[in-house]
Amino acid sequence: MSTSESNTIDKRPKTARGLRTQSKLLEAAEGAFGENGFHATSIGDITRRASVALGTFYVYFDSKDEIFRALVAHMGEMTRGWIAERVKGAPDRLETEHRGLVAYIEFARAHPNLYRIIEESQFVAPDAYKAHYDVFMDRYQRNLEDAAARGEVAAGDQGTRAWALIGMSVFMGLRFGIWERDRDPEDVARVVSDLIANGLKP
Amino acid sequence: MSTSESNTIDKRPKTARGLRTQSKLLEAAEGAFGENGFHATSIGDITRRASVALGTFYVYFDSKDEIFRALVAHMGEMTRGWIAERVKGAPDRLETEHRGLVAYIEFARAHPNLYRIIEESQFVAPDAYKAHYDVFMDRYQRNLEDAAARGEVAAGDQGTRAWALIGMSVFMGLRFGIWERDRDPEDVARVVSDLIANGLKP
Repeated sequence: MSTSESNTIDKRPKTARGLRTQSKLLEAAEGAFGENGFHATSIGDITRRASVALGTFYVYFDSKDEIFRALVAHMGEMTRGWIAERVKGAPDRLETEHRGLVAYIEFARAHPNLYRIIEESQFVAPDAYKAHYDVFMDRYQRNLEDAAARGEVAAGDQGTRAWALIGMSVFMGLRFGIWERDRDPEDVARVVSDLIANGLKP
Repeated sequence: MSTSESNTIDKRPKTARGLRTQSKLLEAAEGAFGENGFHATSIGDITRRASVALGTFYVYFDSKDEIFRALVAHMGEMTRGWIAERVKGAPDRLETEHRGLVAYIEFARAHPNLYRIIEESQFVAPDAYKAHYDVFMDRYQRNLEDAAARGEVAAGDQGTRAWALIGMSVFMGLRFGIWERDRDPEDVARVVSDLIANGLKP
């Protein structure tokens, strides 16, 4: 993981009020970076948006670069938390895949800035971009391996499968979460989870 | 499609020499934009790289923005041409999927600037980015519909499937074409084309 993540950990707030302020700053950064991009956004834009004094920013983050990296990690955590909550109680892995797809499309609709921020991180903080996806792949692979051990999915190279499935999800979120927001996420996910479960074979 | 693509068509060279010069400019643009990004690249960087006079640039393109858009369309055409050549003669759609994946990973390795240029187009020329993927989705959908009519793949919503499969390919190209160039493309594609054909079901 990136150095800046360890900086963020050093500066991790210890009080409830501190946590609230840090979270207000991250939310403001999501709006500012999402709407205007990294280069056109200043720390002042973020603190004004968060209604926080400029000096307070530096209690939590060392630089614009650091809050951007922290935001990429934070959006990853938010995505995983949102999906985990919505797949809870699924009877097996294939149903988890289905519910996870619905949840991910809904997350993209609720956070339309997600794509711009993650995609821009490729240029602004390539290590944070790769780390973002490595965390997803690692979790996904372990989930598939556990499911294979329980006999819920076929044995195989779960890491490579995990990466292919992540690519599918990211693209479904882009088209049906951002570009075409009128399709029912359940309907889209049904098509894709059938493909994931049964493949294209007639 | 974007306005600029029709501009490009207006300026389409009519002689073999003109085609060579235009293609030299596009190749130089691929290198310059790919290495330094859109903003840090000037028209002079491109013409110097192509060993072409600055004035000659304007015979073919109106602006930096226009050659960038033309390059996005050109890289899409190159990708489709490269893959079409390598899937030719495949006995059925599932084998086409397999060979197409191998070819796409190999294309990403041969054109490491592909991702940076396509991804940067999201910010620099969002309409060119969407058009790039809409062309892919449209072709893919028609290919799957034809295959379903021949009984080679299951009936279903081939447009949504096509988009999911494109997402898979793009991510496989990113990880195994750019990030981890040591895996055998055949080996990666075998895992993914088995997933595409048979799904995850045990």
